[in-house]
Parts: sequence; C-alpha cells; structure tokens
Amino acid sequence: MAQLPAWAQMIHHDSSELYLSDITPRIGASIEVRIRVPAEANIRHLLLRSRPDGEWNRIPMAKASTANGFNWWAADLPITMHHNNYCFHFLTESGSFYLNQLGPSPVDSPDWFNFTVLGDYDAPAWVREQVFYHIFPERFANGDPGNDRPDGDSTLMGKPASQREWGELPEPFPVSRNVDFFGGDLQGITQNLDYLVDLGVTAIYINPCFDAETNHYYVIRDFDHIAPALGGDEALRELRQAMTARGMRLILDITPNHIGFNHPWYVTAKADPDSEEAGYFYRHPDTGEIEHWLGVPAIVKLNYNSQSLRDKMYRASESPIRKWLRPPYSLDGWRLDVANMTGNYWRTQGARDVWLEMRAAIKAENPQAYMMGEYFQDSSAHLQGDELDASMNYQGFNTPTRRWLGLGDLGAAQHYPYADRNKFPSESLGLQWQQYMAAIPYVIALQQFNQIGSHDISRPLRVCGGDKALVKAGTALLLGFPGAPCIYYADEIGMDGGHDPDNRRCMPWDEKAWDKDLRDFHQRAIAIRRNSDALQQGGFQLLHAAGDLVAFQRRSRQEQMIVAAWRGEADRPATSLDMRKADVPDGSTLTDLLTGDLFRVTDGALQLGGLTHGQALFLRVET
Amino acid sequence: MAQLPAWAQMIHHDSSELYLSDITPRIGASIEVRIRVPAEANIRHLLLRSRPDGEWNRIPMAKASTANGFNWWAADLPITMHHNNYCFHFLTESGSFYLNQLGPSPVDSPDWFNFTVLGDYDAPAWVREQVFYHIFPERFANGDPGNDRPDGDSTLMGKPASQREWGELPEPFPVSRNVDFFGGDLQGITQNLDYLVDLGVTAIYINPCFDAETNHYYVIRDFDHIAPALGGDEALRELRQAMTARGMRLILDITPNHIGFNHPWYVTAKADPDSEEAGYFYRHPDTGEIEHWLGVPAIVKLNYNSQSLRDKMYRASESPIRKWLRPPYSLDGWRLDVANMTGNYWRTQGARDVWLEMRAAIKAENPQAYMMGEYFQDSSAHLQGDELDASMNYQGFNTPTRRWLGLGDLGAAQHYPYADRNKFPSESLGLQWQQYMAAIPYVIALQQFNQIGSHDISRPLRVCGGDKALVKAGTALLLGFPGAPCIYYADEIGMDGGHDPDNRRCMPWDEKAWDKDLRDFHQRAIAIRRNSDALQQGGFQLLHAAGDLVAFQRRSRQEQMIVAAWRGEADRPATSLDMRKADVPDGSTLTDLLTGDLFRVTDGALQLGGLTHGQALFLRVET
Repeated sequence: MAQLPAWAQMIHHDSSELYLSDITPRIGASIEVRIRVPAEANIRHLLLRSRPDGEWNRIPMAKASTANGFNWWAADLPITMHHNNYCFHFLTESGSFYLNQLGPSPVDSPDWFNFTVLGDYDAPAWVREQVFYHIFPERFANGDPGNDRPDGDSTLMGKPASQREWGELPEPFPVSRNVDFFGGDLQGITQNLDYLVDLGVTAIYINPCFDAETNHYYVIRDFDHIAPALGGDEALRELRQAMTARGMRLILDITPNHIGFNHPWYVTAKADPDSEEAGYFYRHPDTGEIEHWLGVPAIVKLNYNSQSLRDKMYRASESPIRKWLRPPYSLDGWRLDVANMTGNYWRTQGARDVWLEMRAAIKAENPQAYMMGEYFQDSSAHLQGDELDASMNYQGFNTPTRRWLGLGDLGAAQHYPYADRNKFPSESLGLQWQQYMAAIPYVIALQQFNQIGSHDISRPLRVCGGDKALVKAGTALLLGFPGAPCIYYADEIGMDGGHDPDNRRCMPWDEKAWDKDLRDFHQRAIAIRRNSDALQQGGFQLLHAAGDLVAFQRRSRQEQMIVAAWRGEADRPATSLDMRKADVPDGSTLTDLLTGDLFRVTDGALQLGGLTHGQALFLRVET
Repeated sequence: MAQLPAWAQMIHHDSSELYLSDITPRIGASIEVRIRVPAEANIRHLLLRSRPDGEWNRIPMAKASTANGFNWWAADLPITMHHNNYCFHFLTESGSFYLNQLGPSPVDSPDWFNFTVLGDYDAPAWVREQVFYHIFPERFANGDPGNDRPDGDSTLMGKPASQREWGELPEPFPVSRNVDFFGGDLQGITQNLDYLVDLGVTAIYINPCFDAETNHYYVIRDFDHIAPALGGDEALRELRQAMTARGMRLILDITPNHIGFNHPWYVTAKADPDSEEAGYFYRHPDTGEIEHWLGVPAIVKLNYNSQSLRDKMYRASESPIRKWLRPPYSLDGWRLDVANMTGNYWRTQGARDVWLEMRAAIKAENPQAYMMGEYFQDSSAHLQGDELDASMNYQGFNTPTRRWLGLGDLGAAQHYPYADRNKFPSESLGLQWQQYMAAIPYVIALQQFNQIGSHDISRPLRVCGGDKALVKAGTALLLGFPGAPCIYYADEIGMDGGHDPDNRRCMPWDEKAWDKDLRDFHQRAIAIRRNSDALQQGGFQLLHAAGDLVAFQRRSRQEQMIVAAWRGEADRPATSLDMRKADVPDGSTLTDLLTGDLFRVTDGALQLGGLTHGQALFLRVET
C-alpha cells in the first residue's frame, strides 16, 4: 500500500473532553476514549494501544456511533499510572498505520509524541477560563506618588537610581542601568482594576514586586517583603482584596534560579565562607569565586544542593514560595523566572528534582495553585504533569506566531546578530504549533501561558512593523489558541516599543493616546474567548496552514469554533476550508462572532472570500 | 522561501567520530564539532546550538575545509554536562532552518531528537566491535548427558518434566508446559566454541542459566547457582575460561522484574506475611494476593519499594547482579529480562530509579560491563547514558527489518490476532530506523543489541516464507547496521521454526542438516563486519529507501562503506544511488566485499544493475 491511505488525514482525536470521558481521571478509574474516523475507512481492526507499567496493552475499539459520514469508535482505557500514554493502531486489508499527537504515521514511532492522559493530576482548571493581563509594575500606573523611589535609593554598576517623569521614554541599559524609576506601583493597579474589568481580562500576572535594586525588580534583596516603592506588603493585600471582590486571579513572579547581589544570603556568604549561606551558591572551579547568572554581576546563581536553601526557598512554611500563597495575599500561583536554568549547573542538572519538591510545597498550600515557568526553549520534559503546570510558551506559541505575523523571530526581538527577518511560511507556523503541543499532555496544553508580547521581547506592534491589522490577527490567534491567553499591558492600546527596556514604556492614561479601535478589538475578542466553551475547554485540530491563511478548530462537547487569520493583502480571492475534515456537514451555518457575518457550508467546504488584510474570524458552528 | 532549500538534503552530520573530535569526552573538555555542507549552500550564518544548564548557547561555525564540493564547517563545543544536546541552525538570505537527528526541519523542534554527546560517559566500547551469538542453552548442545534432567525433576501446571530426544520437535506450550528437556548445557557450548570461532562470532549471549523450573530457565528459583542440568557453577567457570582463552565476550540473562513461584523469597513471603520477604512483592489492592507477572502463575513480580530487595538483587556485594561479574565467572555484562516493566507497578513507575542504582552497582564491579535491557517497545527514555547502555532493539531494528523482509510484524511473529501481513514499504523501514536512532545519543546507537531472530519470535526463515535469499539480505543489514549484531543460534544453518517454543528447536550437529551456502554467507558477512572500521565505529546516513531497495552509508575516519539490500525480483533494471549525497566523488571505485565486484561513480551516481533477488552489497569506497 501507499504509506498512508488518503482517509487517514480525516481522522481526528485529541485528549480533550470530546474524546475522553474524563480528562483528569483518578488512578484506578477507567475512561472512555473516542476517535472520529471517516466512514469510508476500510478498517480491519482499530486498536487503542497504551503501555501500563511499560508493557503494551492493545485494546480493540468498536464503532459506537455514526454521524455526518464519520464513525466514532470507542474503547475503555484503564488509568493505572500517573502518565498514561497511548496511540492508535489502524489495520486495514492493505496495511497498517499509527496515530499519535503529530498525526498519522506509517511507522510505530517513539513514545514522545503519543497522546497522554494524566492520572491523579489536579489540574488548575481555572487557568483555562482566564484571560490574563501582564503588568510590569513600575510602568503601569503610579497610584501613590508618596512612595516613589528617591534619587539614589539604589545603585547599579555605579549608576544611582533616578526619578523620571511618567511618559518619558526609558533609556537604554547602558545609560539607565535599569535604575530609572517612573513611579508605578501596586496601588496604581488597584486603582485601575475597573479599566481591566472593562477590557475584559480576569487575571493578572505581575512581574516581581519584592524589594530589589532595579526597576524590573529581578535583582531581589528580600523575598519576604514587597518593595516599598511598589507599595509594600499592604498594597499587595489591598490589591488582592480588590481583585477577589471582582472575582479576579493574581499571580506573581519569583526567581528561584538566583538572587540579587545585595540579598543577605549572598552578603553573608561572601563575608563568611563557613556560613550556612556559603552553601547556597556555586563557586567557579578555577577561581573559587561565587558564580553569577550568565556572568551578570548583579545576579547570583542559587545552588539547590544545599538542603538549607531548599528549606528557605520553598520547603519551610514561611518560605516565600509558600507564604505568599496564603492569606491575606492568597496568590493563585507563581511565574518562575529563568525556570530553564533553575537547579542546573554543570554535573548537577537538578531542575526536575527542584520542581518535584517545589510542586509538593506549592500544592500543599493550594492544590489549585498555578506553577508556571519561564522557558524560551523546549520545556516539554518538565510539562508531563509532575513538575510544572505550564510554561511561558515561547516556542509553542509566541515565537512562531510572531515570526508569522512580522519579522519576529527571537533574534529580531532581542537585537541578536543571527536574526531571521524573512516571512515564516504558514506551513511552518502550523508545524511548530503542532510539534510543541504534541510533546505534552493536552490537559497541560490547555493551561500553557501564551502571549504575543511580554516584558522580554519587542512589542507586537514593532514586530508587525506598525501594522495594526496584523496585531489584531495575532491577538485573535492568541485568544483562540489552547492555553491561557495573556495580554502584555498597553499592547491593547497600541503601544510601540523595541527590545528591552523600550518595551517597558509607561502606560498612558490620557485616552487620547490610545488606539481606540485596537482596544475595541481586544475587548470584543476577549469577550468572545470568555464566552466560548470551545476556546476554553476544547481540543485542537489544525485545518489550514498554507499561503497566508492559518485556521484551526477548537471543539468542546458543547461548542465547535473555527479560528482563522489572514495575513495577506485585502480582498484576496476566495479560499476554501475543508469542512469534511472539520466534521461540519453541508448546510451548516457558521457565524463570525467578530462581524456577525454568516457562512454556509456547501460541497464540503467553507468559502472565505474578500478577506481584509489581517482579518481574523471566530467562526462558531450554529446548531 | 520554500520551507527548505534543495541543498538541505545534502547536509550531513551524526555524532560519530568523523564529526566529533571525541565521542566520549570528559565534562570540562571542549570538542570540535564538524558538519558537511554542500558548497552551493548560500549560508549567512551557521550556528551550533547547545543548551548548557538549560540555556541556549549559539556557537558560530566557520568553514574549516573544503573537499569534493562540500564545505566542512566546524566549531568547538564545551562539554559541561552529562547530557549535552545540540542542533544546527542555518540562516540564509531567504530564511532559516534547523538540523537535528531526524534531518533538516523548517522549524525549531522540541529537543527529543536533537544530537547528543554524553559527558563523562564510560561507553563499553568493546561492544561495537563484537558479533554476538545468542544461545538458548537447553537446545544448543548436550555436552554432558550425565547431568540431563530426570523425568519429574520439576513440574509446571501439573505437568512433570520429561526428557526428549535431541532433534525431536518441541511441543507447543499447552502440551509441554515448557518442561520438556532435551539436555543442552554449558558444557555443550564450551565443546563447540571452535564452531563459533569458525563462524566468526566473538561474543555469546546466553539465555538464563540459573536454577529454574522450565526449559527456558526464566522461572528462576535460585540466582546464586547455575542449574545443575546446565552444568552448574563449574561449567560456567569452564566456559568462561575457554572463552577468555579465545578472546571472546560473554553475557548472561537475568530477571530483575520477577522470580519463579518456588524461589525461596516467594515461598517465605507466602508462608509469613510478616517476613522481610513479604515486602519484596506487590499485593493486589482488592484480593490482597501477591501479584504475578501479567497474571502468569509461575512468575512473581518484584517490588523495588523494598530496600532489602534492592540490596539482595544488586546493591550488596554478594547480590547476583554483582557477584557473577567477578572472577571466576567474569561476565561481560547482563541482558535484563522484561526491562520494560522492571520497577513499574501502578503509581510506582520506578524503572529509572532502579536502573540508576543498578547501573552504579554494575559499573562498580566493571566500568566496561554491558547493561542491556529487553524492550519490545520504545526504550529511548532509558537510553540517555545514565541508565541502560543498550536495549534489545526490537523497535529500532528487528521489527521494522523483519516487516520489510517478509511478513514479520510482531503480531505475525507472536500468533497475535492483529498482525499486519502486508509488505512494509522501504520508505517506512528507513523512517522507523531513523526515528529510533534519532531518539538516543549516537554513542548508544553504536552499542544497541540488534537481531533479526531471537528466542521470543519466529525464526527469520519462517518470517521470510522459507526464502533464504531474503534471510541473507536481513543478515547483511544486521551486520551493516550501527550497534552490536547478534545471530540467534542455528539461524546461520537455516533453522526453521514458528513462534515460541518452535523457535527453540535443537541445533543439529550433523552437518548434512546444515544449509552450507547460508552458513558460508554468514561467515563471509561476519568477517566483513569484523574487519570493517566503518561498520563498527562509523556514523549512519540513510541513502535510499524506496521501491525494493534500501541503502545506507557507514563512515568512520578511516573507512567509508555503503550497505545495500534488494528484496525485489532478480535482474531488476539498474537503480542509481546518489553519490553526491554520500560524499563519494566521481571517479571513485567501490568494491563489493561479498563478490569482489567493482563499481565506478559517474555523474554523481552509482549504477546498481542486475541485482539478484535478496542480494546485499557491502560497498567499500577505495581510496
């Protein structure tokens, strides 16, 4: 036979609620697994193949129902372990093939991209339902000028802290040394919560707020207190209270990988090599000097070979990782800075060990707390259900989507000499999305932290060359994609900015400075996301990734939605989307929730004609 | 740009000695990494990208030399960790792409298939140089009729042991219960070592020899003694001595996953639930009964949550895993039975933990000991350099190669209802080979344990439908493939046999029963392997996998060899192999080491015409 029959491309399964009777089963339970197979498939046997205790278990599937020219095959899968991976084995008269999260394959592939259902996994299910807003606190709003940082309050590389006027541009690092302060604080967030409610976001992620040297508050000198210039502990308590009153969620940022150069642990260790704290750090094997993070003088790498450090950072009840999760602060989770390097140093590649322990500590405080790590790189090894709940999903969403929208590979964003400034093919966008989603359990994909802008990369508007239509397309993809979407502050009003620190400009509160049309688009797209069961809970099926169009389906038990974005020129000739593949029968009506336009499926296809440049569609299948 | 430029397919790198200045470097060293790139490639930047401590390190590469229309780019890679993964990032004026062990990709993929170089890894380098012979000891030769097992000496499922005449056929399990004994023993192996030397093999793997109930000796009742009917401890001592005298290597088989039903640990545990031994087993949560292996009554699953069991099995100096590695037995390693399930039971998926500890125990006895596990499934998670040295490589070599040769998917081999009896496309063979090799470090691929026959699957001759030409083709692929090739006893003389126990017939010692032509082919192919640096040490590049022809290149610093096999009908029209891709310039001469035929490269191609059915070629590039 040919390597794969044509109908293999019409099969669909993902580990979402439409295909699994329970996406978070307990160990010992049995769940029903379903798969959608075109009726014309000449199947001799269809097997659900799992690996309990490492051995194959081949479970024969049977046709359970038929609809729209598809058979839905089903079988019961016993959940016997934490990490239950499975694939499908199709046998026909002319050959056999397999299906895993990368799609159909003529060969039986290694397990890394198999489907996975986690047993006894307490998913922080609230995450899927949120739309996050990401705030760099020093630049969002100055709620209390009385706590503004006086000139000279801190110093970096000989440069003393200096006050700036709200709205002036941040100066580049060689000038500012990141000790230019504009006065933003937590009170400023509390006072503007209604702005966020109006925008539609439901959760906030704030960059670090602990007492620290620099305007980004990553050079931390005290994990036990919120920086006075950000309002101190009391301001966080008030913010939390105001957010709880509005039903909003809040996560903060912490740096398990390192501390600032004047944190007492480091000061003590330097002064006394026999101190307990001296064991919290690595020393260079040749020089004997304490190791800094990537050679940055202000930031000192932590060494989790020290059991005492583990206690201090996350095991002890009063450790910062634990205490801020409790009232009155009641954080809903942590964003873990430089997660990719935490616990890792030469022979000691200890990240997994740290995450296992830290997870136990976090979940002991709140089983629903969200544990999300920063990874610009592949993080799939740490997203298998026993370490992190999610990563800041640069590789799986942010980077490829920015490359597709504009000139946004990471190099371009980080003024790095090896940038690729070419257009990213739509096929590549689809492939990269799929590969990173395929490397993790789908229940984790549903809570991945997705952004198109962040404090570490140039603004989406910059990446798109000032083209706001493309920013809209990117925003729609963000809100349509599996995971928790997060808007970086001021992207919604059309803030421009290059690489750090130019991407950390002050939020303008004079509405005349806002792009109202762009903000309106954000409001409408956020509302669509918040009202859509499919976008929050649904599976993922790539429908089209070619030319200048990408389209994917999100489908839950209750709702079927197709998200599409067009980056080409206006008024392109009609493109058709294959609706057979999407299981949307002829005669169906789809409503674009952004425009109200109606589309009808005929001859197995949906005609998309006359799209405007940057147009995005949220096409809900009407039932 | 198109997703990939055409010249991307001409690039080659693998983590073998031609491309790495050291394939087993120490941590702290720096190695040179080279890559072969066609001269027409319009490269703006070529980066070697690694991830020390989890962070990307992008190392610019430079052209180091030029030959045959290829540029060899090079860069130094610091070895900072145990598991150093890397890939290549190509930037051109029109776009960028990546290269990992699966080949060129337009997107930056998850790390699972990146290249890997292991730091501080003590490779058992002798393994690559061996040709193994696999002996089922009860059926190879009866060296001492005086120790033959008397009738009734053991019992399984009510069936008492019975003696059979050498050469009678084994009866199926429902009749024999695997307690029919033909009298083979270790003395029989010792007495026939010269047969093996004459065949050319250099190492022996023997199925279990410990005192046990059944003819396969897997229902073990005593790890501390060789079964009397196999000659006892003294016979192993003598075998070892005779093999050492011939420079031969020896590995045995042990069952860390389970013991037999009358092993004293189980007898004690059953009798006394308060005994220490009671903790060596799992109990069914509902019935409270001790758990057997896959429900097989004769075999009892071991529970490594017991620290005492860990001591008894591998930690203590007198534990079987350790003591048999020491003189006078001095085993060169272990084949670990049912490795795929060892340490795994419901919530406890402890295989990694057991392998880490067992590896430390084994390597403490002999750093060069070979630790090889049985896996019919994907084993790549356990082949990353800190657990197993190798697996019995069913998925990466045996199963796809048998499927390509005949009707040999595992189902067909195991009288399993879901067999695929269709011809496996050559493209699929190439793809499955590549995927499993890509999932592990190449230094591990060089010591994978490859077979086309074993005691658990039907004989290659049966799989090939009696077609000896195809058996030859499979044998050539086995001996040409990266890893340690292993011949299952009597395959070389054309033994037939279906699934177990029919695949365990007695070796005939009357030469009239041998297929001399087939044995001669084995001798010649084994000699080629033993004399070839490229086949032992070289990298791997798939050159052709289409129609009925597969061909790959093995290349070391000293030698360049192309291995090809043709499963089609005789006298096919000429097929050309792309020699540009293989870096074999026009005018080169290649010698087929099996026939002495000479081939000349013209117009970038090698014409292979008039191949006979099942013909294999070992084409050495003459320099």
